[in-house]
Amino acid sequence: MTELRPRLPVELAPGLRLRRATLDDLDAILALLADDPVSAGRGDRNRSEDVPAYERAFAAIDRDPAQLLLVAESAGDGVVGTMQLTLIPGLARRGATRLQIEAVRVRSDRRSGGIGRRMIQWAKDVAPGAGAALVQLTSDAARIDAHRFYERLGFSASHVGFKYRPPGS
Amino acid sequence: MTELRPRLPVELAPGLRLRRATLDDLDAILALLADDPVSAGRGDRNRSEDVPAYERAFAAIDRDPAQLLLVAESAGDGVVGTMQLTLIPGLARRGATRLQIEAVRVRSDRRSGGIGRRMIQWAKDVAPGAGAALVQLTSDAARIDAHRFYERLGFSASHVGFKYRPPGS
Repeated sequence: MTELRPRLPVELAPGLRLRRATLDDLDAILALLADDPVSAGRGDRNRSEDVPAYERAFAAIDRDPAQLLLVAESAGDGVVGTMQLTLIPGLARRGATRLQIEAVRVRSDRRSGGIGRRMIQWAKDVAPGAGAALVQLTSDAARIDAHRFYERLGFSASHVGFKYRPPGS
Repeated sequence: MTELRPRLPVELAPGLRLRRATLDDLDAILALLADDPVSAGRGDRNRSEDVPAYERAFAAIDRDPAQLLLVAESAGDGVVGTMQLTLIPGLARRGATRLQIEAVRVRSDRRSGGIGRRMIQWAKDVAPGAGAALVQLTSDAARIDAHRFYERLGFSASHVGFKYRPPGS
């Protein structure tokens, strides 16, 4: 039941298609993850010695029915956005399944053009069909513009997000 | 590979055992979820008409190898704590798998006795063995004491947690 299989591909707007990512998209997704001042500080650079780790991570996402890695593709302009969705069953909130959004990125030269808004709106729209009664995400405290973006899309900044990095990782 | 199977049960302290939850623990876990002023406002009450939904949610957690629902049991005092762990593969942060902690609760009459601290410390300790390079959780902005608790345990309040509840859910 923890399966995330919305109808895809889907046209988010004329010339803007959202689809499940394939291994062929890996380089484009990694470029999007690196093309960001906050992520860059975390070592999200696309280095050749990391390729096997990235390919393993892609395979782990791809084979897990509770995960869905997406790319937004613009006609004639390639991959311009990405996000990962995760379905998490739970007992709290009357046994609510949660739809979690991670790793949302839009290519820097295409930001502020409605791509991110359409991606997140689509995720909100498919949540009920995936059995999710709650959509959740965290955003780095430094991303002030992103916070306004999510609030305009109906999200409530109700929580504090904590991260811990084990020694050596 | 997205499998969360740490060695269990484990003695967190003399007389305090952490183990995988079974269906027989469901009532005790729901009582813990309800025994909390923040959750109570979300409708986390244990009502008989909700039992099938809770049992379905328990089954969905229990059969997903990326999920682990835990209870802490005190000798002679039954279930005194609970938390749910989720392993989330990802491409960001060099293909890091994340260990997410949700629905952490300690029975009200046993709070401030080190049970929660031992549970979270254990989760931090098993993260590397589960392949997780990051441990993450969100805490309601109203839980000021919880925020101090997580910071003392080495977590950084680096993110804002956003939630969206689809209409009708």
